[in-house]
Amino acid sequence: MVKLTSAEIKSVKALGSKKFRDIEGLFVVEGEKMVAEALESGFKIEKLYRRDEIGEQQMSRISSLDSPSPVLAVIRKAEPKPAVAGKGLFLALDSVRDPGNLGTIMRIADWFGIDGIFASQDTVDQYNPKVVQASMGAVFRKTVTYCDLPALCRSFREAGLPVYGTFLDGSDIYGAELKGEGLIVMGSESFGISKEVGANVDSRLKIPSYSVGPGAESLNVAVATAVTVAEFKRRNA
Amino acid sequence: MVKLTSAEIKSVKALGSKKFRDIEGLFVVEGEKMVAEALESGFKIEKLYRRDEIGEQQMSRISSLDSPSPVLAVIRKAEPKPAVAGKGLFLALDSVRDPGNLGTIMRIADWFGIDGIFASQDTVDQYNPKVVQASMGAVFRKTVTYCDLPALCRSFREAGLPVYGTFLDGSDIYGAELKGEGLIVMGSESFGISKEVGANVDSRLKIPSYSVGPGAESLNVAVATAVTVAEFKRRNA
Repeated sequence: MVKLTSAEIKSVKALGSKKFRDIEGLFVVEGEKMVAEALESGFKIEKLYRRDEIGEQQMSRISSLDSPSPVLAVIRKAEPKPAVAGKGLFLALDSVRDPGNLGTIMRIADWFGIDGIFASQDTVDQYNPKVVQASMGAVFRKTVTYCDLPALCRSFREAGLPVYGTFLDGSDIYGAELKGEGLIVMGSESFGISKEVGANVDSRLKIPSYSVGPGAESLNVAVATAVTVAEFKRRNA
Repeated sequence: MVKLTSAEIKSVKALGSKKFRDIEGLFVVEGEKMVAEALESGFKIEKLYRRDEIGEQQMSRISSLDSPSPVLAVIRKAEPKPAVAGKGLFLALDSVRDPGNLGTIMRIADWFGIDGIFASQDTVDQYNPKVVQASMGAVFRKTVTYCDLPALCRSFREAGLPVYGTFLDGSDIYGAELKGEGLIVMGSESFGISKEVGANVDSRLKIPSYSVGPGAESLNVAVATAVTVAEFKRRNA
């Protein structure tokens, strides 16, 4: 059984916080399936811990899970991509705070072949352990570029590319013109798209509700992203 | 400050388990927004606990949340509905185990005006506190009917109503015939639709992936439900 130094245990544990992930440029994945995806991904694996080698007790000291998995990897983060308009269909997330939502959105972007994901600086970190887990491996195929969203919207518009946004009072997405290229902005769980970002949106969309009588007031942001992106792709396939 | 008896505290806490919810016919909701929805819903409120009345300490003893909210209600469950085919568009969930997914699906069904939700007996309980929370109030507008899914599928087919299912090897939903009435079966997070249920599906659908190169292997079940239901509603609106 390999004995880890307490400094080493501390350094892995520290990667649970964004501050240390940013300083070290590293993040953690746990679980056999996720680590297998990491190994195939081309991401640089800095450390690999196996329960068989270090034992149950040390494993539970470095793990962020309630029941630690048999394997944990410390991985070098991807290089950030530039926050500029590009050809293709892109997503921009305005203050998405819930890790499960961001991970699910990365998985959706992966499935639907979205060309890139941007997010406001106050969106949850893509290397947060819960985001990584919910992404089901999409973290190795999609990078989130954190940036100033109003400036990003302007760079799309200056490149002649449309900027879409979803609003509760937008116009029915099924009747709207949707191009195969541009930027789709999704708002936060609680407040939707902020005023500053909304002022830079060309086309305000909404997913219609078919509820009769009193019904849901909104959709979960990951769910709304999926329905929106699916419609863009269906129309432009 | 009202002092609760330890028996009363125990009886509220017990509703965290399905066994006791079934015995008592009660469930718990927490939070100001959820309790407000409960009050407007017509559901019978058996008990209402406010932090102002019973104090922070007693509140944290009856709450299932990490940081207890100012208000908690004990509510009588809805009467179960019969597990038979009906006119309209219905969902059937085959072994959906994650509470967040079921709650999100209830919210989706609410938004898209789904006429009823059925689920296999091993699907997570609709009155599980995490389901209730994720449903964002849909628990007061949509009831899940737990039943034998193969028999339910047969009852739809015998009534001349189509049974749809989503499969990774189904045919493209955007090219398939989708009627405004029938049953849409969604499979479990890990295993999709079971063999027994799948044998009773008339039309096998899939949501196409637009990923180029290696991509996501699947979509989250709540996300897949939303994309599927949105397409049925768009087509038949």
